[in-house]
Amino acid sequence: MYFHDKRLQYPVQVTTPDPLFARQLQQAIGGIEGEIRVCLQYFFQAWGARAKDHKFRDMLLHTATEEIGHIEMLATAVALNLQNAPLTLQETAAQANPVVNAVMGGERPRHMVEGMLHQHLLSSGLAAMPVNSDGIPFDCSHIYASGNLAADMYANVTAEATGRTLAVRLYNAAHDPGMKDMLSFLIARDTMHQQQWLAAIEEMGGPAVLPIPDSFDQSLEKQEFSYVYMGTEASGMSPPEGRFNTGPSIDGKGTFSTMQSIPMGAEPMLGPARDGSGAQRKQMDDPSAP
Amino acid sequence: MYFHDKRLQYPVQVTTPDPLFARQLQQAIGGIEGEIRVCLQYFFQAWGARAKDHKFRDMLLHTATEEIGHIEMLATAVALNLQNAPLTLQETAAQANPVVNAVMGGERPRHMVEGMLHQHLLSSGLAAMPVNSDGIPFDCSHIYASGNLAADMYANVTAEATGRTLAVRLYNAAHDPGMKDMLSFLIARDTMHQQQWLAAIEEMGGPAVLPIPDSFDQSLEKQEFSYVYMGTEASGMSPPEGRFNTGPSIDGKGTFSTMQSIPMGAEPMLGPARDGSGAQRKQMDDPSAP
Amino acid sequence: MYFHDKRLQYPVQVTTPDPLFARQLQQAIGGIEGEIRVCLQYFFQAWGARAKDHKFRDMLLHTATEEIGHIEMLATAVALNLQNAPLTLQETAAQANPVVNAVMGGERPRHMVEGMLHQHLLSSGLAAMPVNSDGIPFDCSHIYASGNLAADMYANVTAEATGRTLAVRLYNAAHDPGMKDMLSFLIARDTMHQQQWLAAIEEMGGPAVLPIPDSFDQSLEKQEFSYVYMGTEASGMSPPEGRFNTGPSIDGKGTFSTMQSIPMGAEPMLGPARDGSGAQRKQMDDPSAP
Amino acid sequence: MYFHDKRLQYPVQVTTPDPLFARQLQQAIGGIEGEIRVCLQYFFQAWGARAKDHKFRDMLLHTATEEIGHIEMLATAVALNLQNAPLTLQETAAQANPVVNAVMGGERPRHMVEGMLHQHLLSSGLAAMPVNSDGIPFDCSHIYASGNLAADMYANVTAEATGRTLAVRLYNAAHDPGMKDMLSFLIARDTMHQQQWLAAIEEMGGPAVLPIPDSFDQSLEKQEFSYVYMGTEASGMSPPEGRFNTGPSIDGKGTFSTMQSIPMGAEPMLGPARDGSGAQRKQMDDPSAP
Amino acid sequence: MYFHDKRLQYPVQVTTPDPLFARQLQQAIGGIEGEIRVCLQYFFQAWGARAKDHKFRDMLLHTATEEIGHIEMLATAVALNLQNAPLTLQETAAQANPVVNAVMGGERPRHMVEGMLHQHLLSSGLAAMPVNSDGIPFDCSHIYASGNLAADMYANVTAEATGRTLAVRLYNAAHDPGMKDMLSFLIARDTMHQQQWLAAIEEMGGPAVLPIPDSFDQSLEKQEFSYVYMGTEASGMSPPEGRFNTGPSIDGKGTFSTMQSIPMGAEPMLGPARDGSGAQRKQMDDPSAP
Amino acid sequence: MYFHDKRLQYPVQVTTPDPLFARQLQQAIGGIEGEIRVCLQYFFQAWGARAKDHKFRDMLLHTATEEIGHIEMLATAVALNLQNAPLTLQETAAQANPVVNAVMGGERPRHMVEGMLHQHLLSSGLAAMPVNSDGIPFDCSHIYASGNLAADMYANVTAEATGRTLAVRLYNAAHDPGMKDMLSFLIARDTMHQQQWLAAIEEMGGPAVLPIPDSFDQSLEKQEFSYVYMGTEASGMSPPEGRFNTGPSIDGKGTFSTMQSIPMGAEPMLGPARDGSGAQRKQMDDPSAP
Repeated sequence: MYFHDKRLQYPVQVTTPDPLFARQLQQAIGGIEGEIRVCLQYFFQAWGARAKDHKFRDMLLHTATEEIGHIEMLATAVALNLQNAPLTLQETAAQANPVVNAVMGGERPRHMVEGMLHQHLLSSGLAAMPVNSDGIPFDCSHIYASGNLAADMYANVTAEATGRTLAVRLYNAAHDPGMKDMLSFLIARDTMHQQQWLAAIEEMGGPAVLPIPDSFDQSLEKQEFSYVYMGTEASGMSPPEGRFNTGPSIDGKGTFSTMQSIPMGAEPMLGPARDGSGAQRKQMDDPSAP
Repeated sequence: MYFHDKRLQYPVQVTTPDPLFARQLQQAIGGIEGEIRVCLQYFFQAWGARAKDHKFRDMLLHTATEEIGHIEMLATAVALNLQNAPLTLQETAAQANPVVNAVMGGERPRHMVEGMLHQHLLSSGLAAMPVNSDGIPFDCSHIYASGNLAADMYANVTAEATGRTLAVRLYNAAHDPGMKDMLSFLIARDTMHQQQWLAAIEEMGGPAVLPIPDSFDQSLEKQEFSYVYMGTEASGMSPPEGRFNTGPSIDGKGTFSTMQSIPMGAEPMLGPARDGSGAQRKQMDDPSAP
Repeated sequence: MYFHDKRLQYPVQVTTPDPLFARQLQQAIGGIEGEIRVCLQYFFQAWGARAKDHKFRDMLLHTATEEIGHIEMLATAVALNLQNAPLTLQETAAQANPVVNAVMGGERPRHMVEGMLHQHLLSSGLAAMPVNSDGIPFDCSHIYASGNLAADMYANVTAEATGRTLAVRLYNAAHDPGMKDMLSFLIARDTMHQQQWLAAIEEMGGPAVLPIPDSFDQSLEKQEFSYVYMGTEASGMSPPEGRFNTGPSIDGKGTFSTMQSIPMGAEPMLGPARDGSGAQRKQMDDPSAP
Repeated sequence: MYFHDKRLQYPVQVTTPDPLFARQLQQAIGGIEGEIRVCLQYFFQAWGARAKDHKFRDMLLHTATEEIGHIEMLATAVALNLQNAPLTLQETAAQANPVVNAVMGGERPRHMVEGMLHQHLLSSGLAAMPVNSDGIPFDCSHIYASGNLAADMYANVTAEATGRTLAVRLYNAAHDPGMKDMLSFLIARDTMHQQQWLAAIEEMGGPAVLPIPDSFDQSLEKQEFSYVYMGTEASGMSPPEGRFNTGPSIDGKGTFSTMQSIPMGAEPMLGPARDGSGAQRKQMDDPSAP
Repeated sequence: MYFHDKRLQYPVQVTTPDPLFARQLQQAIGGIEGEIRVCLQYFFQAWGARAKDHKFRDMLLHTATEEIGHIEMLATAVALNLQNAPLTLQETAAQANPVVNAVMGGERPRHMVEGMLHQHLLSSGLAAMPVNSDGIPFDCSHIYASGNLAADMYANVTAEATGRTLAVRLYNAAHDPGMKDMLSFLIARDTMHQQQWLAAIEEMGGPAVLPIPDSFDQSLEKQEFSYVYMGTEASGMSPPEGRFNTGPSIDGKGTFSTMQSIPMGAEPMLGPARDGSGAQRKQMDDPSAP
Repeated sequence: MYFHDKRLQYPVQVTTPDPLFARQLQQAIGGIEGEIRVCLQYFFQAWGARAKDHKFRDMLLHTATEEIGHIEMLATAVALNLQNAPLTLQETAAQANPVVNAVMGGERPRHMVEGMLHQHLLSSGLAAMPVNSDGIPFDCSHIYASGNLAADMYANVTAEATGRTLAVRLYNAAHDPGMKDMLSFLIARDTMHQQQWLAAIEEMGGPAVLPIPDSFDQSLEKQEFSYVYMGTEASGMSPPEGRFNTGPSIDGKGTFSTMQSIPMGAEPMLGPARDGSGAQRKQMDDPSAP
């Protein structure tokens, strides 16, 4: 179960509110690289973790709980950046408040509305929403929790790698010192979380976790295709050479090679449609039937 | 640009069609772990790959092109498994065709309809659809192509790890020898593809790709939090010990440590709602105003 | 604006309620081939119809309004079919009510729950929902209203062709005489609506509406590719011959021919990633920079 | 920021695991009436609450934090119910494990798979997912946080009213005493939460919060239509009489009355399509132009 | 069944077309607070209303039918506002038509395109779509019809409270007198509809409808938690005091109190993963097995 | 199975990169009228085509394969248009690079960011995504493959009619000669594809394919309603006259006529809610029960 403290994990301050930056921050809340995703992903992985020892469950719970606080920081940052957003379409620059002018350089507030996420103005009353920077709501199909802890750790590395890439892009786009400071903290946490999930893979055995899942008897797979890079260039030209098709495989269980793809199967034959299946008569066995 | 051959990459045969297995195979077509996802993911990563050398673009194109053929194999398998599915709800076992009986063991076809993906019967005319095993259409927000090739390679490892986990589960559930054979091929290809993307990370420099993106100057992040595992247990009890909070970090640039989370920020203060923002009067500065 | 009459457009009666058939009927309500789709599609086409004469707007409004009544009929049919659905998982056949037994042939009600749309039981209290037979909510991206009336008429033919195909499949699956009767009416209306939209195309000029949109000056398109069927078989083998690559084109403005696809463009060159774009250093111009 | 305790808020025990009930419980996790929804809804309302006093923000944070623990309880219950689910399609009853038999009464495990959420077996490795009982992922467009606290309180009453209705249906469907006990706790919490949000409306002023938002000057609305029930029966027959069209209005600011709807506007005239807008030539001003 | 009249329920006039306002109006059509939602919500509640007396069904049908006319008014308003939207990206202000200039104040039409919903230009041919102001299509999971009429009435109050809040925001943003007039009518209708659903709750018994559903025997819920506000502050500090935790409960069946949340359950124990479930070997009972 | 060639089907060149046009091109990639849709639609129709002769399957495969190359061309065009997009919000026009200035005419880059698809900057690193011009990901429910080849051909005509309409709008909006050239090729291919699917209908028998499906015995439909245009005007005024309600029907099997809609059914009677179904007590048979 869970507890809260009213204070934020790290300070969030905005000197020059900017509704366009509020929009960009939404990607870090409700984007697929965002914090709702990692928060729920780590929770669902923890709550469904099956294993004799509970270390992974425990490790996941700590970090999942930390991530709620990150959503909270970003939601606060969005609300602060929307504080002075224009509410009408026809205000002139002269009528606009000074803070709007600071960001807009004297242009008409209408321009600022053009760049806003319209739901910020119309649906949330100038507050954060669980959507991305183009207004798409987060959808929980992005919570990856496969029941295989090694696959999940790689999903987590991915989430933190795209998450830190996003945080870096936001840092580069930002102009407010408070926002840069907040992002420098979140970037550091993403650094750690990348490390943490890779360390977990190491703790599980490193390359020995491969191929994932390691509980399937490899003698049952068609092993002649298990370490072969297949080229599909129509001209038959060889694919580029690289670590991915030369030398021992990463799991140490094979040797990489290359082959040109060729059809090993036949042309598929589905045969005629059945009576009563709603097809056209011509698709059926006896096209002349009523 | 692209070319095709009418034949399949690998043989697809079904001896005992089973509409319930057709439904399960859908997960490998339109599930988030499925083949539409990897196919389009590798294509979009290739088409957007920015770099001086084109090796990664080329490598991705070969594998993306191979994956179209995997969707094709699975779509064929679904259609073959649906060949004799019951079309009505009230047929008796006696009326049902022999192949249905082979799978059902003499029970009423109605049971088989109960287990089917209903869209197979009603929407596709007994053929594959780009949906998962519960009928949810694939949605392209799952095409991860971040513009950062290292992040993308981890996304690809994840896709192939969850993909092989799914293929193994389907292999275990399957009862038809043709289906087991087809899956043993797809499992082998997933083995290779896991290896391939990990090899690509090695080719990019291995741990040197970390933290992702490696183009952000780490002196700008709050480095005192970059290698710290944060505990959130309310009792203050220490988190479990593991590779993820002891020893050198995986990127070799820090040393893991542990600390208990504490609020470093203040309670957020958003202040009153603005006039004209659609809030309740009581949320505003002057609640007595009209 | 709109009016209603409490009575249904056509009688809806259910003698033997069947929750599995209730589930199948959902496809005709909230499926992409269903009635919510055509209803809203015709309304949005009407409300946005731009033209000097209002005939098409008027024609669309009549049919859109009729379709509300079809959703109503189907929603009523779903509710009637759910009337006696089992509410628990462990009732025995003996405890179950007689109507359940009539459909189930003495088996345990648990089987019937297994086949139900679970949201019928848990979310709607045994009534219709705006979802398809696998529970996916209808989403208005399927309302096709392009601003081009000819394109819209073809979209409508498609909707009624897939709609009638679905209605026929439901008719074939149904066992209740009341349901067969209701569907025989809806099938007839789909027959008419297919005719109606094709007649509208004829009224607009038949083949002269082509290519759609007809307001684009064809001399601006690369006309050497306007009536050519392109083959993509890797072996270079010719594509099948048919009406689609022989003889005069359907619009009478060209002659069909066939050619093998070849690359006319170059390999795309995106060049290195920019500094500050969140890519890996190796994707950039100067990989050695910090 | 947030903290956790490894223990559950309330005991969760399952004596007879039942994968069909696991599926039904999913509605309470990822359904629109479920716990992810209320949890994130209360958080986003709290994080965006604008007002001079912070009481509502604080009140929301406590309950939002409690709700994380409810998702956790339900996720645990789902995993426990899936513990012994069949993994294959062809196991016979004799091969099946005893617990499966306890629920299935000796029937083939295939039947149990037919009733399962297929993603439980194929995607999550027999654990909970953030989806509803038909497998649809939760999508954050259902997080209602309007920036108007009175509107939000009614949204919360709605969420807890549909949530308790769902919990009651699950209680009625359940057969395991541990599950009934867990649900009796969640039902009690839903009782409280309904009360709590209604009490919050009372604290804001009760009927004085109406009409929502109360910060819009009612003299600007067309007040002759503000308390009139409009009938749309084509026959002109009067609508039913009730509290909703007789007596003083609930907000005390008007008197209910009834009128038959009539068109007060004209037929809309959009005029011809513009050149270059992609319409058909016939929709344009000069249909004979090229 | 249903009928129409070509004329609008209320006049819709636009003097200065503004494509940015067209975009904002979309929220009132396809947003979750919009008119498609209430229209279909009231219809599905009516069509599924189970009760001995039909008053609620009848009441709902009248208002649902009225709402179709509201979508029609708004769709007309969007089309009129898009009448002169720029079709190209490079037109200069001098080339632009005078009406565009009236809104833009002499700036380049490109700016206007930047603020537009792009689908208005590219997909609908300058007409309304069933999407919100950021282009997200309406999705019918927002049609709340729970089978419990009291819960549904609260859902309707919520819909009209958020709907009126939105209409007020649009009124404040609007600059065209015709648009302000139309919105003043819609705001009045939202006032009435809020009243109407609250009156329906009063007619059902007022507080006696609580807790919803009132058909569940409250002695079966854990009543010691039914009227308790639970605090989750980690420091143990008491939650704020308010009507929601002091005095008699709103339903008159209990007395509010406050307690600090504590774990009453144990740490969940899922145990090892099963063989054949696709987990890692280390998650299983016998990690050394092949 | 499939092969590729690194070169593009047709040249793609961009002289003046424009991130706003990049955004508009996205509609042709991930919009419902776009190339991912037709590509996957033709593939799924081919892979599921049931018929004695394989001509349609073959025909579909060639064109599906061609369409992959169209997505590739457009993805390349998007990336090229994003090449110089501004990465920050506060750059001045003076700091901006010359190419940005060429498009912006000396205005602040901030304006350009306002018009961008934000995910281009934040999520894809300035590359194409499988989303539409407002950022909505493509979702595979738009892959129409009904199992009825005639219905599918009309779906394909629709896709190419809306697709060409979109391409024409993009051509009109474009300012770069390379983009106009690329679009002139894609428009030509859309011309052909419209023709091709209409030719396929002719090959199937032209009007004889109607009504779709033609395998349903028309004597089973309520034929008195099969060729009747139904008017719904409340005043009883006749609907407009046109080809759609006069003369022989298009399929030659009936004669069009007109009638005013009237209710033929009764008012639906659902009866009271059942005990244990979660309704309010008042909806049940015995409201006084506990």
